[in-house]
Amino acid sequence: MKAAFYEGDKTIRVGEGAPQAPKAGEVQIKVSHVGICGTDLHIYHGAMDGRVTFPQIMGHEMSGTIAKIGEGVKNVSVGDPVTVMPLDTTLCDPNDPLKHIGKDMKFMGIDTPGAFQSHWTVPAFTLHKLPTSLSLKHGALLEPLAVACHDVRLAELQAGEEAVVLGGGPIGMLVALVARTKGANVTLSEISTYRTDFAQSLGLDAVNPKETDLLEHIQGKTEGHGADVVFEVTGSAAGAATMTALPRVRGRIVVVGIHPKPNPVDLFQFFWKELELKGARVYEDEDFEEAIRLADSGDLPLDKIITDVKPIDEAQSAFERMEQGADVMKILLEL
Amino acid sequence: MKAAFYEGDKTIRVGEGAPQAPKAGEVQIKVSHVGICGTDLHIYHGAMDGRVTFPQIMGHEMSGTIAKIGEGVKNVSVGDPVTVMPLDTTLCDPNDPLKHIGKDMKFMGIDTPGAFQSHWTVPAFTLHKLPTSLSLKHGALLEPLAVACHDVRLAELQAGEEAVVLGGGPIGMLVALVARTKGANVTLSEISTYRTDFAQSLGLDAVNPKETDLLEHIQGKTEGHGADVVFEVTGSAAGAATMTALPRVRGRIVVVGIHPKPNPVDLFQFFWKELELKGARVYEDEDFEEAIRLADSGDLPLDKIITDVKPIDEAQSAFERMEQGADVMKILLEL
Repeated sequence: MKAAFYEGDKTIRVGEGAPQAPKAGEVQIKVSHVGICGTDLHIYHGAMDGRVTFPQIMGHEMSGTIAKIGEGVKNVSVGDPVTVMPLDTTLCDPNDPLKHIGKDMKFMGIDTPGAFQSHWTVPAFTLHKLPTSLSLKHGALLEPLAVACHDVRLAELQAGEEAVVLGGGPIGMLVALVARTKGANVTLSEISTYRTDFAQSLGLDAVNPKETDLLEHIQGKTEGHGADVVFEVTGSAAGAATMTALPRVRGRIVVVGIHPKPNPVDLFQFFWKELELKGARVYEDEDFEEAIRLADSGDLPLDKIITDVKPIDEAQSAFERMEQGADVMKILLEL
Repeated sequence: MKAAFYEGDKTIRVGEGAPQAPKAGEVQIKVSHVGICGTDLHIYHGAMDGRVTFPQIMGHEMSGTIAKIGEGVKNVSVGDPVTVMPLDTTLCDPNDPLKHIGKDMKFMGIDTPGAFQSHWTVPAFTLHKLPTSLSLKHGALLEPLAVACHDVRLAELQAGEEAVVLGGGPIGMLVALVARTKGANVTLSEISTYRTDFAQSLGLDAVNPKETDLLEHIQGKTEGHGADVVFEVTGSAAGAATMTALPRVRGRIVVVGIHPKPNPVDLFQFFWKELELKGARVYEDEDFEEAIRLADSGDLPLDKIITDVKPIDEAQSAFERMEQGADVMKILLEL
């Protein structure tokens, strides 16, 4: 079978892999489509060489159909279309309600082999069945969509609330779109013209904070009250500085972006306005179910999110295009 | 009547003030005791000269008895022992559930005259009646105690949880004591030996983070899980750095300390452990009621919190002693 191997030094080799027969409690999936995530790009850049195992098969945003079933698996049948919630919690305390972020959770495609291979063997408990009405291309978007659903759920976003999303990459864009389905009034802040144009083409209010005074813009939209919710999806010092300026009294901030180092945060604003901040990481089963429901509803412009679909053989050039990043939202690899 | 006037440049003059007859909806209180707060010291240092009105009568931690009643006041009678929740929300939207931190709220003793005077006239809606079983000395502690009750309430602290309080000044100490009444296991972190000794004399587990590795201490107490709740009451860069290291997965942080400038915060920890942070400012009516209930229960060592009681004539020297700060918890002025 075909697989893409990250071999370090920005090199992805596509070659022959060894399919794994499913053991008890496992299934083998015939992989259809796999998205390239920002985390995959991070791995490609060598930033996680200490965590992955060489040669690493990356990939955790995927869709496929069940090819083989291990002993005792009851939740799917051969041929079922599925996606995977790529959190291997086998080693976690089964009674831990927070095992999705527990210290023994293995992230599949980083800590274990991922979906950049034509046949992927995974624990059956990671599966979510897809409706047959949902295309397998859209199915590969469910993982990042579940991230967005998790973020919006933790924000407890209500219809009619003013939400600001800082950062318009794929996750920020999906957060904005999911927030809109909840009836929120959404503003997206993003410094890339490609991304603000893209967001505007989806009907979002997108502003470039280098051209527009974002605080003034939000104050204007809210009669001076400020935003109900701010999603910080940039992982940048600018995002950390802006996130406390925009919310109203008792406004909420959800930090989604990964901040590699401590950034200055105006804790006085937390005190003064009794702000609330939650960190949000990955998702739980209910977020995948919500993502599937939303994707299948047709209310999201998922076709537009997919910039391109390339055969797995072109993985190296797809990563190089992602790396340039100027005009890319999501690239899928096809197995 | 006697009053203490802050005249700028670390100068407090005690002299004759003009008592104000209560207008409709107001009462005049014969003031008994008033605590000196860290904020008063901040004013004394000139840090709020742009906000106060010269000569400023400070003071917002007080007790007294009703001396005169304005037209239409029904909630108290002459002679009733009372304290004041010093938030004048007269100009706020009466329907705003968050008017305690609304932009039009006036903090009495800062934005308006305070309680360092023998007769203080205030809106009747700010009053909380005291049980006759509570001494008026203890009554002057209710305001900082209500701060602590507010902080612990926002933390949603549960019996059996591990709480860490960073900073052992009067507010940190009261937060630790209130947390203990909820059945939490409390650790207080403080760099002053006077304060750690004091906390230990109250039966608290108090450590000096310059002598003891606080993270290791908390990991040891929680079998490696981390704290359920961290109260950041230092307002320091060290507190901002420590507050994210100690909590467990989905642990909560309550920021009580005032951070005059943005400090580096490890937002990665918020993401990684899905931490939650709330800013906490002042209190609401229910926090005063809880403070009164707790103070009256006898479960708190309030006598020990009061380092000294001085006549108002000695206000200047009392502030000077507070300023040194080495061996002071709370000083009350007596009118």
